[in-house]
Amino acid sequence: MEITTYLNEQRQRVEDRLAALMLDPVGAFAQHIESMRYSLFVGGKRIRPILCLAAAEAVNNNEQTRQCALPVACALECIHTYSLIHDDLPAMDDDDLRRGKPTNHTIFGEAAAILAGDGLLTFAFDLLSSPVSAALADPVRLRLIQTVARAAGSLGMVGGQSLDMIYAGKQVGYEVLRSIHRSKTGALITASVTCGALVAGASEEQEEALKTYGDHIGLAFQIVDDLLDVEATTEQLGKPAGSDIKSDKVTYPSLFGRETSRTMAREAVQEAIAALAAFNHQAEPLRALANYIVNRKK
Amino acid sequence: MEITTYLNEQRQRVEDRLAALMLDPVGAFAQHIESMRYSLFVGGKRIRPILCLAAAEAVNNNEQTRQCALPVACALECIHTYSLIHDDLPAMDDDDLRRGKPTNHTIFGEAAAILAGDGLLTFAFDLLSSPVSAALADPVRLRLIQTVARAAGSLGMVGGQSLDMIYAGKQVGYEVLRSIHRSKTGALITASVTCGALVAGASEEQEEALKTYGDHIGLAFQIVDDLLDVEATTEQLGKPAGSDIKSDKVTYPSLFGRETSRTMAREAVQEAIAALAAFNHQAEPLRALANYIVNRKK
Repeated sequence: MEITTYLNEQRQRVEDRLAALMLDPVGAFAQHIESMRYSLFVGGKRIRPILCLAAAEAVNNNEQTRQCALPVACALECIHTYSLIHDDLPAMDDDDLRRGKPTNHTIFGEAAAILAGDGLLTFAFDLLSSPVSAALADPVRLRLIQTVARAAGSLGMVGGQSLDMIYAGKQVGYEVLRSIHRSKTGALITASVTCGALVAGASEEQEEALKTYGDHIGLAFQIVDDLLDVEATTEQLGKPAGSDIKSDKVTYPSLFGRETSRTMAREAVQEAIAALAAFNHQAEPLRALANYIVNRKK
Repeated sequence: MEITTYLNEQRQRVEDRLAALMLDPVGAFAQHIESMRYSLFVGGKRIRPILCLAAAEAVNNNEQTRQCALPVACALECIHTYSLIHDDLPAMDDDDLRRGKPTNHTIFGEAAAILAGDGLLTFAFDLLSSPVSAALADPVRLRLIQTVARAAGSLGMVGGQSLDMIYAGKQVGYEVLRSIHRSKTGALITASVTCGALVAGASEEQEEALKTYGDHIGLAFQIVDDLLDVEATTEQLGKPAGSDIKSDKVTYPSLFGRETSRTMAREAVQEAIAALAAFNHQAEPLRALANYIVNRKK
């Protein structure tokens, strides 16, 4: 399948729906809402929401499922965007460039950026509990909220970022590196896939298989991220290249070298695809996404 | 009724349950969890969770309702604590003292404090969607999540804090002041009361009456906060007294003088109590809480 076309179409669907769901920058809170919209619509690959849509499609490719998955996908993108805004703050990674544009705090100031993140995180749970997702059964909606809260929280993404800060500049081994990645980026990627499965009414086996797919894809994604930081240019990445070396971060290439890292990423992708063995052609986008993730140039 | 005894008992119930529900500071994320626990257990009046419990009690005072309300009350305190941690950050109000103790970022650093707030906010939604609240019907749980997300979000508490930052040091009129307070503190206070009503299965009329009570109590709470900032000592408050004057903030006393402000607070409390006219003796704690809020010394 033509993955580029698929990605473009899905990205457009996510962005159109996000634009419709997101608060309008009018009224008393216009300035604050503007700062959230800036980071939400500044660009981005929309990998997490697309993983959610593709996972739902793998289980059940009817129009109703496709429609139900969209606001959930949007909530995932809100969580991801909030995490980028907070990670970029001066007190954290202190980055000026993200998605090829100035970071939130360089434009709106630190206080507004913290609040933009807080607002987006809270808005994700607003979306998941609001009437826009009411076509889904209540128990499913609660499981979605629980899945996202766990993945994004202190034993997931937030905990992972705290480890990233704690270990910054320290020489750590593979076990710590893996634990940081699993929580910081892996948890939300796996949750994105799991949310798609839940929306589509996956069986327990299907859910488990998709979760395994998500775990491997998350690993591959992170290894490639580390490789791109060494191999790509700032212009290609839309964020400063070489920042891992600059901040003395332990990465896959720094631990294993570039060749071995690339092999590890390919193996992770193969395992991800292997987990989908029981799925039919509806899982083609997920398979193509796995290959895209390891071959991407940004 | 003896409000002090009631408050102590309810505070103890909330703190015991929070201690049981909150993540343990062990494993890879121990440091991060420690920073959340610090602010959560450093003290506090626990007004919001107690309002939730008292509102539930006003509608339905059986043991099942009391039990169901507790994790919801705990989630509200997590949200409140997160908002204090982020408000105190150097980029926001830059406060060193809160609840009589050093603020989170002065102990754990700015990055950890941002993440402690993020973690607590996310944990609140984890609690509301987790099996600990499963004794409640699914539609009720979804309404609770929606109520909290709306009140805490960009059109509520987060939006209010953004206005507070935007208007800091600027001379604003009563309308703006009221709008800041309604969103920054009023929304979560009203939501706390509403959540109690929802947990207890309140009728539409009861929910509306309790919401009105919450709106007035929120106003009274804020006016008294402003008055205490002028009248109390730092020791009494557990946070720097006179900080509103220092940061050139418009407050009730600065707009209306202390006498008129006190009268406004008393009137708000009377209206709050009037809203409870249809409730029987089970609403006594709510009535006593209203009087406590206007007479408190910290």
